[in-house]
Amino acid sequence: MFKIIKNNNHDRTGEVKTAHGVFKTPVFMPVGTQGTVKGLSPEDLKSAGAEIILGNAYHLYLRPGIDVIKQAGGLHRFMSWDRPLLTDSGGYQVFSLSDIRRINEEGVEFQSHFDGSKHLFTPELVIDIQDALGVDIAMCFDECVPYPCEKEYVEKSVDLSLRWAERCKNRFKRNGNINQFLFGIIQGGMYRKLREKSLQELVNIGFDGYAIGGLSVGEPREAATEVLSNLLPLLPKDKPRYLMGVGTPEELWEYTGLGVDMFDCVMPTRNGRNGQLFTSSGKVNIKSARYKNDFTPLDPECSCYTCSNFSRAYLAHLFRAGELLALRLNSLHNVHFMINLLANIRLSITNGCHDEKKKEFLQKYIKGELEDDLS
Amino acid sequence: MFKIIKNNNHDRTGEVKTAHGVFKTPVFMPVGTQGTVKGLSPEDLKSAGAEIILGNAYHLYLRPGIDVIKQAGGLHRFMSWDRPLLTDSGGYQVFSLSDIRRINEEGVEFQSHFDGSKHLFTPELVIDIQDALGVDIAMCFDECVPYPCEKEYVEKSVDLSLRWAERCKNRFKRNGNINQFLFGIIQGGMYRKLREKSLQELVNIGFDGYAIGGLSVGEPREAATEVLSNLLPLLPKDKPRYLMGVGTPEELWEYTGLGVDMFDCVMPTRNGRNGQLFTSSGKVNIKSARYKNDFTPLDPECSCYTCSNFSRAYLAHLFRAGELLALRLNSLHNVHFMINLLANIRLSITNGCHDEKKKEFLQKYIKGELEDDLS
Repeated sequence: MFKIIKNNNHDRTGEVKTAHGVFKTPVFMPVGTQGTVKGLSPEDLKSAGAEIILGNAYHLYLRPGIDVIKQAGGLHRFMSWDRPLLTDSGGYQVFSLSDIRRINEEGVEFQSHFDGSKHLFTPELVIDIQDALGVDIAMCFDECVPYPCEKEYVEKSVDLSLRWAERCKNRFKRNGNINQFLFGIIQGGMYRKLREKSLQELVNIGFDGYAIGGLSVGEPREAATEVLSNLLPLLPKDKPRYLMGVGTPEELWEYTGLGVDMFDCVMPTRNGRNGQLFTSSGKVNIKSARYKNDFTPLDPECSCYTCSNFSRAYLAHLFRAGELLALRLNSLHNVHFMINLLANIRLSITNGCHDEKKKEFLQKYIKGELEDDLS
Repeated sequence: MFKIIKNNNHDRTGEVKTAHGVFKTPVFMPVGTQGTVKGLSPEDLKSAGAEIILGNAYHLYLRPGIDVIKQAGGLHRFMSWDRPLLTDSGGYQVFSLSDIRRINEEGVEFQSHFDGSKHLFTPELVIDIQDALGVDIAMCFDECVPYPCEKEYVEKSVDLSLRWAERCKNRFKRNGNINQFLFGIIQGGMYRKLREKSLQELVNIGFDGYAIGGLSVGEPREAATEVLSNLLPLLPKDKPRYLMGVGTPEELWEYTGLGVDMFDCVMPTRNGRNGQLFTSSGKVNIKSARYKNDFTPLDPECSCYTCSNFSRAYLAHLFRAGELLALRLNSLHNVHFMINLLANIRLSITNGCHDEKKKEFLQKYIKGELEDDLS
């Protein structure tokens, strides 16, 4: 499944082979919560270089419903995406979106945030859902604790999530879907011992890959970095490591340096829809008056459809005019930017110069940002 | 400029040659009011077969402003569209959108519907705007009367629009833009004599093409057909005839039969955004519950990106979920449908069987519509 191609100090490149093809790591995965990466078609995603994208079991279960997707022949066919797919189990969404929830040993009872209907998510159901979706990588169902959170609560939660992880693994084995991998999710909040316990017991159960959950939930960046610095050396080297819900260009450089292989984040599409664009010389807020008469490309170093065809002035006009095309062109560029950033990171690892290239990138990126703020 | 290729009874096919290439007639022109056809990229438009699209002088003048587009090198470069462009002069918008307006001999004073700023549109300014935009076909500035409208008012209005048409022509000659054509617009409401007078005097002034304005403004379809049946035989055969703001598939078949060469309409994109889709077997309201489990393509006879890749069930899901991709896929299909419809109409004219093919189309189209309503 996973092959390491180059391993330097901590940083590494590799390949994950799935039933829908190979993706190179470290990888950035655009998020397609409801069976579509917001604003982008499968063709757009391919043009941006996406090798794997995400779906979300919680959202798809509620709408359009798993039956519909099963009848369509699985999520790949339903959304017309023939490359690898990973689904988030919905653990995070059950806790962050649903109206009322009651957690017990069996699972989580919750009310749909659409229509108030009641549902029970158990580890077994969540594995069955992802099996029916036919995705390449399924995630365990776990409890994601908020930040900050009392140690006692986190302790109990980690234990519950571990029992659920074992049930997930058992159900996964029973289903016998040989075209799917199952990843465990390390929790434990900001508590080192709990994180290490979570990691160790997940490794004992044995998964195809290991995710680090519960970061990027409001904690200071240093706290997240500390958790990761402690955990990554303890993870099996021969399995992919997935940092959920991260991150910014700075974070992508930093955490690939620690040996993270997979990332996902809604930021490129969400910020794109809000007019905040990532470029090699810092962030561009396209709403700013300074771009009204700027006829240069958004990012002269970018080869995406947006940068190849349109000026900042045109993007600024579309955004001001509330035109749909603004949302698509912005999202397309931002997704392309992140995917291309990872391609550059992989190249730097191959050439054994991750730290050097990271400094080079950040210097230009942060310098550009300051200029944008001061102007 | 205009070459007739096949002329049967009234129906005809031809080609219009512009500085940005040739388009075949009869043609359907998607509407790109604010410098973008809503929801579609230039690449999408080309994939839908668009040979010419519209812009709007009134909207572009107010936002982003003519200076910006001139600095960008013209509207083609600003919006990255390298095929023919036609701009509506803004006459219709000045009367329908702006807050306060005062019409006098000189022109129209109005307040911007964006910010209340005051502006004066004269025939000369509107020609200069379109010259600066660098479009292939410019339209005269005229007054578009509402429906219904008193004969006395229409009479005065037609005379004023004729004096303005002459001023437009003079300014156009003075500007000497050899890469641009200028079309006159026939007005006169539902009054045959006034329409004929408008036509005759415009022909006396002499334009590169003749548009019929002031239809599709709420009048019964029969009234529009009567106006057109009377006017079309009086128009010079060797100039293109453009029916503004029309129409439905039924109207496109009917009016090409009368010899109309050019059409524009916001319907494909607007209806697409509302979930109403045109297919060879009638209209499909994608919001209807019956499509939730319909895994067939939207229109099996259509070769657009939407129909080639996605099911009705997926389109229904995207629409319900409020996803941006729904708006784009729907708009893309509808625009492709209209452009393809015109290709079929041209073929029927080439083969001398317009009426026969019209009946065939309508039979299937209207039958499908009834089934959709009854189910």
